[in-house]
Amino acid sequence: MNVTPGIELRDREEDYLNINPLQTAGRATLEARKAVLSYVDGYSICDWCKGALCEMEKPPVKKFLDDVSVFLGMDASILTDGAREAKYAVLHAITSPGDAVVVDENKHYTTYVACERAGVRIYEVASSGHPEYKINPEDYAKVFEQVKAETGGLPKLAILTHVDGSYGNMVDAKAVGKICRDYKVPFLMNCAYSSGRMPVNGKELLADFISSSGHKSWASGGGNVGLLSISESWKEKVFKLSGKYKVKPLEILGCSSRGSSTLALMASFPHVKERIKNWDKEVENARHVVSELEKIGLVNLGTKPRQHDVNFFESEVLYKISQTHKDKNFFLYNELKKRGVVGIKAGLTKNFKMSTYGKTNEQIKHLVWSFTDIVEKFR
Amino acid sequence: MNVTPGIELRDREEDYLNINPLQTAGRATLEARKAVLSYVDGYSICDWCKGALCEMEKPPVKKFLDDVSVFLGMDASILTDGAREAKYAVLHAITSPGDAVVVDENKHYTTYVACERAGVRIYEVASSGHPEYKINPEDYAKVFEQVKAETGGLPKLAILTHVDGSYGNMVDAKAVGKICRDYKVPFLMNCAYSSGRMPVNGKELLADFISSSGHKSWASGGGNVGLLSISESWKEKVFKLSGKYKVKPLEILGCSSRGSSTLALMASFPHVKERIKNWDKEVENARHVVSELEKIGLVNLGTKPRQHDVNFFESEVLYKISQTHKDKNFFLYNELKKRGVVGIKAGLTKNFKMSTYGKTNEQIKHLVWSFTDIVEKFR
Repeated sequence: MNVTPGIELRDREEDYLNINPLQTAGRATLEARKAVLSYVDGYSICDWCKGALCEMEKPPVKKFLDDVSVFLGMDASILTDGAREAKYAVLHAITSPGDAVVVDENKHYTTYVACERAGVRIYEVASSGHPEYKINPEDYAKVFEQVKAETGGLPKLAILTHVDGSYGNMVDAKAVGKICRDYKVPFLMNCAYSSGRMPVNGKELLADFISSSGHKSWASGGGNVGLLSISESWKEKVFKLSGKYKVKPLEILGCSSRGSSTLALMASFPHVKERIKNWDKEVENARHVVSELEKIGLVNLGTKPRQHDVNFFESEVLYKISQTHKDKNFFLYNELKKRGVVGIKAGLTKNFKMSTYGKTNEQIKHLVWSFTDIVEKFR
Repeated sequence: MNVTPGIELRDREEDYLNINPLQTAGRATLEARKAVLSYVDGYSICDWCKGALCEMEKPPVKKFLDDVSVFLGMDASILTDGAREAKYAVLHAITSPGDAVVVDENKHYTTYVACERAGVRIYEVASSGHPEYKINPEDYAKVFEQVKAETGGLPKLAILTHVDGSYGNMVDAKAVGKICRDYKVPFLMNCAYSSGRMPVNGKELLADFISSSGHKSWASGGGNVGLLSISESWKEKVFKLSGKYKVKPLEILGCSSRGSSTLALMASFPHVKERIKNWDKEVENARHVVSELEKIGLVNLGTKPRQHDVNFFESEVLYKISQTHKDKNFFLYNELKKRGVVGIKAGLTKNFKMSTYGKTNEQIKHLVWSFTDIVEKFR
């Protein structure tokens, strides 16, 4: 069924249990939906603008951003079009083409692409590889030394993926922050999979910059929107204003997310502030699912104990079934869908990831049952 | 009334006649509203992604972009987060800091800010000033010569505001394009106030690049979204892909408007293709309003005859009233609101702009009556 010619009605949130890691923490709240509907016309956020999106008093964008800074333990925040745009903003503001920048191997592809666009030279902190894919904080020091040896100077920026979107590994960010501070290397934490889902405090973790994703982890919904939060000392450089248009920050070209996505982010914020208090329960749910799926032969990758709702599995048992099942490698997708579960990429059986974020006990139970039932039926 | 705590219910489209130039051509169509609602959850556009937003087949983003290229008479198009992001993408891709770039004096502030962010040296084609503020195409040649004399080379890019948002002046873009071609200077047309409202053909106008604004002029609604359309010869440079992630264009960090704004843009496109056919009627409406308001003492600025729905007025008569009216300079805003008209900035009486885009005959009549009634009552 099409919602409008050429565009299918989307029903996976209403009719299914969706475990796509990209989507579980980005579901729009009722409040966000109301805000999006009310501000559905173009540039309606600008009704009362006095010159700059992030300074707006009506709707109270400025107050919201001040609250976000407190929430994340940072000094100042601006709206961006997403986490990637926040990372690029920092890269563009504080590095020059050819500069060395250190990233972790588990980074999101956008960290790499933002570095490429900024023209910097990328140095990578390797993970421990299969099966843990662990990022050891102390390796940042080693790579800093390598940069020093090779270029004669320290990197201009270190980027850490606080939690990565493949294995859901949470890195000891404070340990990385400590090393960065020791070396005086500015430290950017990409919190696209952490802030908005769980408590994150930049001051405690010694971060200079935090990038956040509204549509991924702040329940803000369908339009892309993000946040760049920084510590005071970087304000002049990273939030630099236009020389001619004195209220317009250069790195967001004056006003970034100038539309309903910002309203949605703001409307969902009270909910986000509450939901992060349930983080222990989210981790407990994830661990429960991991342990139950391991009982039927799946193997969970990543660091132990599990600390996040995103989990990656190797599944020889499901792969074997796909070899003889009439639907071939699409069997898992089809069989899960029959049981009302979606979000694992169609065609995967051997390796896949899932997220249990925000699921009820009932849903967690149903998820475990679905996998167990499939394995029992077809093995 | 609040739609959600801290965010006012927006009623100006439902309860008023809105003449804010920023907003008249950005109203979401019914089709866009349905698409936004169906794709209101975070990253829902990515359900069937095979690697890159602009290559998506489901929803048919790739097909849409191909259609947009035909619609605008260009060879290839990608999604951006707005017109400003499209301009910056071109600047970043084809210039280096310190390069000379030529812009027109009537430019949107974001053209200037994008140039500042790119670190280029800005040369300006002056307008004729009060009252016409005309950009003479041949002045581009003069400024090119100036750049040559001062820097020893030609500018790396010329940007023309096809129609500016203050006076609604339409420049003879083809004449500028011809000069750019003669000098071999790449030519970017900012069509934020033209494409989507009226017919624009880049090939006919000799444009290398066209930037468009979805939320401003393509009826796409509340989330910011734009388009960058280019001619074939620039593809490799401007749509350059990541060296590592081979489907991800660097200048949009892989995927730009990854959310419901893109769906809204797509859903409104059939309507946009139809509505541009009414452009003559839109111009006729604008001319009628200008002529009627001049009868009551307002003075219309800009080039003659008027060619666009955006119009700027000087109004000594309304300013005079404000000197004795109890509401002072807020009287015009208040009196218009009483008559169901909004969109002129609160506090303005002496200089203001308006847009008549998409208004019915009835609404045009009411608009003229409102101003006439106010002047007659308080003069």
